[in-house]
Amino acid sequence: MPGNVFGSFFRVMTWGESHGKAVGAVIDGCPPGMALLEADIQALLDRRRPGKGPASTQRAETDTVQILSGIFEGLTTGTPISLAIPNKDAKPGSYEAFSRLYRPGHGDYSYEKKYGIRDWRGGGRASARETAARVAAAGVAKKLLERHNISVSSYTVEMGGIVANERDMAQVDQNPFACPDFAAAGQIAQRVEEVKKLGDSIGGIVEIVAKGLPAGLGEPVFDKLDAKIAHALMGIGAVKGVEIGAGFGAARLTGSTNNDPIAPEGFLSNHAGGILAGISSGQDIVARVAVKPIPSISIQQNTVTVDKEPTTLSVTGRHDVCAIPRINVVCEAMIMLVLADALLAQHALGIAPRSAK
Amino acid sequence: MPGNVFGSFFRVMTWGESHGKAVGAVIDGCPPGMALLEADIQALLDRRRPGKGPASTQRAETDTVQILSGIFEGLTTGTPISLAIPNKDAKPGSYEAFSRLYRPGHGDYSYEKKYGIRDWRGGGRASARETAARVAAAGVAKKLLERHNISVSSYTVEMGGIVANERDMAQVDQNPFACPDFAAAGQIAQRVEEVKKLGDSIGGIVEIVAKGLPAGLGEPVFDKLDAKIAHALMGIGAVKGVEIGAGFGAARLTGSTNNDPIAPEGFLSNHAGGILAGISSGQDIVARVAVKPIPSISIQQNTVTVDKEPTTLSVTGRHDVCAIPRINVVCEAMIMLVLADALLAQHALGIAPRSAK
Amino acid sequence: MPGNVFGSFFRVMTWGESHGKAVGAVIDGCPPGMALLEADIQALLDRRRPGKGPASTQRAETDTVQILSGIFEGLTTGTPISLAIPNKDAKPGSYEAFSRLYRPGHGDYSYEKKYGIRDWRGGGRASARETAARVAAAGVAKKLLERHNISVSSYTVEMGGIVANERDMAQVDQNPFACPDFAAAGQIAQRVEEVKKLGDSIGGIVEIVAKGLPAGLGEPVFDKLDAKIAHALMGIGAVKGVEIGAGFGAARLTGSTNNDPIAPEGFLSNHAGGILAGISSGQDIVARVAVKPIPSISIQQNTVTVDKEPTTLSVTGRHDVCAIPRINVVCEAMIMLVLADALLAQHALGIAPRSAK
Amino acid sequence: MPGNVFGSFFRVMTWGESHGKAVGAVIDGCPPGMALLEADIQALLDRRRPGKGPASTQRAETDTVQILSGIFEGLTTGTPISLAIPNKDAKPGSYEAFSRLYRPGHGDYSYEKKYGIRDWRGGGRASARETAARVAAAGVAKKLLERHNISVSSYTVEMGGIVANERDMAQVDQNPFACPDFAAAGQIAQRVEEVKKLGDSIGGIVEIVAKGLPAGLGEPVFDKLDAKIAHALMGIGAVKGVEIGAGFGAARLTGSTNNDPIAPEGFLSNHAGGILAGISSGQDIVARVAVKPIPSISIQQNTVTVDKEPTTLSVTGRHDVCAIPRINVVCEAMIMLVLADALLAQHALGIAPRSAK
Repeated sequence: MPGNVFGSFFRVMTWGESHGKAVGAVIDGCPPGMALLEADIQALLDRRRPGKGPASTQRAETDTVQILSGIFEGLTTGTPISLAIPNKDAKPGSYEAFSRLYRPGHGDYSYEKKYGIRDWRGGGRASARETAARVAAAGVAKKLLERHNISVSSYTVEMGGIVANERDMAQVDQNPFACPDFAAAGQIAQRVEEVKKLGDSIGGIVEIVAKGLPAGLGEPVFDKLDAKIAHALMGIGAVKGVEIGAGFGAARLTGSTNNDPIAPEGFLSNHAGGILAGISSGQDIVARVAVKPIPSISIQQNTVTVDKEPTTLSVTGRHDVCAIPRINVVCEAMIMLVLADALLAQHALGIAPRSAK
Repeated sequence: MPGNVFGSFFRVMTWGESHGKAVGAVIDGCPPGMALLEADIQALLDRRRPGKGPASTQRAETDTVQILSGIFEGLTTGTPISLAIPNKDAKPGSYEAFSRLYRPGHGDYSYEKKYGIRDWRGGGRASARETAARVAAAGVAKKLLERHNISVSSYTVEMGGIVANERDMAQVDQNPFACPDFAAAGQIAQRVEEVKKLGDSIGGIVEIVAKGLPAGLGEPVFDKLDAKIAHALMGIGAVKGVEIGAGFGAARLTGSTNNDPIAPEGFLSNHAGGILAGISSGQDIVARVAVKPIPSISIQQNTVTVDKEPTTLSVTGRHDVCAIPRINVVCEAMIMLVLADALLAQHALGIAPRSAK
Repeated sequence: MPGNVFGSFFRVMTWGESHGKAVGAVIDGCPPGMALLEADIQALLDRRRPGKGPASTQRAETDTVQILSGIFEGLTTGTPISLAIPNKDAKPGSYEAFSRLYRPGHGDYSYEKKYGIRDWRGGGRASARETAARVAAAGVAKKLLERHNISVSSYTVEMGGIVANERDMAQVDQNPFACPDFAAAGQIAQRVEEVKKLGDSIGGIVEIVAKGLPAGLGEPVFDKLDAKIAHALMGIGAVKGVEIGAGFGAARLTGSTNNDPIAPEGFLSNHAGGILAGISSGQDIVARVAVKPIPSISIQQNTVTVDKEPTTLSVTGRHDVCAIPRINVVCEAMIMLVLADALLAQHALGIAPRSAK
Repeated sequence: MPGNVFGSFFRVMTWGESHGKAVGAVIDGCPPGMALLEADIQALLDRRRPGKGPASTQRAETDTVQILSGIFEGLTTGTPISLAIPNKDAKPGSYEAFSRLYRPGHGDYSYEKKYGIRDWRGGGRASARETAARVAAAGVAKKLLERHNISVSSYTVEMGGIVANERDMAQVDQNPFACPDFAAAGQIAQRVEEVKKLGDSIGGIVEIVAKGLPAGLGEPVFDKLDAKIAHALMGIGAVKGVEIGAGFGAARLTGSTNNDPIAPEGFLSNHAGGILAGISSGQDIVARVAVKPIPSISIQQNTVTVDKEPTTLSVTGRHDVCAIPRINVVCEAMIMLVLADALLAQHALGIAPRSAK
């Protein structure tokens, strides 16, 4: 089926291209009776806004969300919530140079092969701008999760090859890279400046943590909670890897060190990342994603035209040096959509408590 | 929705517990007119069989698959293909000791929280035995992919901390760890013996490669081909991480090194792992999974009873030292299910070629 | 998507052909902790058995259901429940005459056009035998509905043109046509004998009633509860029409007579058939289906061979004169599957009661 | 799952309330490369507009559709097509009288029971205004069907108890009731005037015909093409019955008269309504729906307040006397959505033609 829908219970469909009229999302399945204002959504959306740090572009978008349906007297009604974010700063003309060639690292070639046509204006649907609609939808999921005392946060644990060794959460809001390590943040700032001068770009690793989740969420077999999280996070354009708990590190441990012992007061470690056999254990859920470097760089690259003629490309427009930290809130958003869905799923199941009838 | 269905077009539902009567799969959506014998499926299933190497148990199961429907005169009819694999070696009694405690690293605790009841006989539905049904279903997908000249293979690139530096594919069938590095395979054999003596277990990393895929498969946004692959692979019990192409390594590269340049003869590198913006580029698809160490170990572990009393546990029954190499074919199986589904999806789309009508 | 799955929460996939090894169903999403025996399912299945009345064939099938998974110590575990019913009386050879022609009123021609291949043994997947698997699955749904005090029943309101004017429910089990009108049942018996002698067949109308449903079940817009019921009932092979409440009769009423007035003690009539704007009102749900005459008749019919040559056909094997009353339990079964699904859906929604937070 | 999505391949999600900011639809899965203008959609939408005949209200809405995404240089791109129709004539205040009582025949009571909250402004999401979004989405489906030479039309075969005995298609556009019988149309005009004076309302029966469909569309078992059509049509608010081909009349025929004989030149009759065993036969698809009388009438009705106090209600605002003929285009729209989906589904299946490989 077409890929623009996420979730089964808390179901989100997004639409819109980078340089079209707007991007948007429709949420079907949000429980009724929940207070919801545009400001609730806007707060999350503002965290994704460009132009906030040295690694981001200066695209001057306010990204103002409008609620078009599903609210009555300030409360959700259980009917679809339609959200739209007009594209105010669209300049499609500036992309005309790319209409006849394939940008390396972008979806230009694969989209053309899939659809036989592609909207080359800023990547069209393949643009990271599409994630604004996801974040808006997650603004609604966040309200639902808050009712259940579930919170999701994220921070940068590696950027441009510089590893954050500290986990000082007070630091995360104090530097433009959302890095919980003061010293590392300083080194990252230098790295960003170097890379910017070279016209190149960098990637990194983001860690996302969900707190307050009850044990028992998720499904067995194919739709394990970690499988859904992997699906959600790998569906973000720049993400090339996802790991849960000890992740790739677990491959190097023995069973006796990787297993989390259980005591009357709870689990004594969390190599599992809060998920056992695909179902939440009640511990924090911990996931990490590998973010590739931004493919649009001003360094000259070899490519071909749509007629397969060799050519070169240097992307000179506004582009971030790194998808971090703007991508961090997108990662949180996707986790929120997964958890809202899992929460409603579990309630559906819960109607028949054990009995011998 | 309940999690026992995979795929939309080539749709598989699996059922069965480790020590129940059987495990099985029903495939809805297999195209008609395709020759299919039980032997086609059995060949793949035999690769998953235990007792074939030093890292595996001696559970003496033949795992014989039966086709119960969907075939007429040796050809698929387009109707559901029901597959069943009887559980011949079920000894539920041997698990009775675990009925009142939670095994660390297993789903005992989380399943009980989700369902309020759990089948403790060998882990029930959470047992790796469940994957036999996935592999059987993939036996059907494999036939479909072969028609399109798509093949999927796998090999072990790390096990017990020992890294395979060579990629000599001729070696893969020559050692019991499916390792493409002769020297590494020897070291792994030693490591396995050591760990076995200690009553401990190990994990590793498996790489899966799909060849022959046309460009244009996959969906945009949420259901990117890599998102589906991550979903599929992370849904295997022991998997804690998934990466595509350069994966976590991409986080440390610059854009100028990570981008795959394009020449008239094709892409000049494959950091992308065959997927651009979620859609296949026609290059090989390359994925890697982190496999955690087997949680069942004979070394004594701390845990609690269902009444939250502290206790200890030593698992003495038959258990693999490592999920590798038995898990390798399960990884291939999941990739095959993803690709069969993507192939049918693309055909659905392809009915309206570009025109100006 | 392929059409062999029904429901989203209480999800059923069926498989099997008329003269294959077995027919079966897998239920994914049944709540855990529910007592379930094969006998619970068998009771419903026995009501569908042939050979019980003058209008039915003498196919001597016991139709014994086996539970293959999903039960532990007599209780459902929340994992898939796999049900199989072996085909004991399969005689595919007797259908060989039909392998080269298209039977009028059957799916022979349309299946061949769809799939390019068809299993001509008794209609294969298009046989009414397929409904045994639906009834078995409904045996599980029935247990779930009983917990919520919801019951579903049915009776014949017209057969062979003879209309039941009485609604004496005590009569339904007293005649072989499940007719609530003693006098009409007598006339139907005569009509059946006449038609049998002529080698012809008849149809009729079945009414299904669901009692005990709470108000508030169903979804708005596309998946209204009546839309789901229509989907469910029209998906039974012989059904050519579905109506709810006053149904086609409502088209002839004025608003002032069709509207059901509301009083403090409840609705004063039930033209709506228990559903308002697609959502249950708490009144009885009332649906009726038009059942076409059995297409297999011994009277000679004109048709063509697969090579488009004219030929004639006279079906001499065992065939019912009327799908009623065997189809009645299939209608009940489909309604039960719809209601089980709607019940779980509503619980998913219900987690966030109104608040001004 | 929430009920605001229709279709699997050609998937439509609608949103919006009667007196909110707008109603809209997002289409995910429309094939790329198809020319599409707002005018294409507008043409269909204009047929649904109120105020065009004596049986309709004078609500002065232009219902102008906007395409917000999914189009590039006048062609579909394969990405979601977002459509919005602003609500220009919303006067929520005029409904305040209904905020504290339940209107008979409306969803007020059932929505409140389901959601615990309801948008009483003109019925909110339960208003027939919601169907504008369906018709807009069908405007896109229509373009797809036209490429395959499939057309869908409808006409009124009964209204206010007056039956159309003629099928003179040239008449359909010549009278305000879309009736193919000149004499009947005259009688209907008189009936409408009488009913309007009484402050009452009427219903009727609409027949929908699809021409040009290839044989082989539809799915077996649960998702038969007629089951999907029943689902689609019964999901329209005012519809209380659906029949295919001979429909309820088939219940009174014998097999020898109801079966459609087959000759070398094709089927010799069409009691089946173009569908055999749930799959299209290549004949015209013929469906009929029973439309209930409009529940909003100025005749005084008994009901209760939300506090269960008896009260009376007389609806004096603008309301149609009959949902026909405005509902006719909605019926066509739903059939178009079903057929577009079935068409894409069949192409997905068709990739593996019969072979003995």
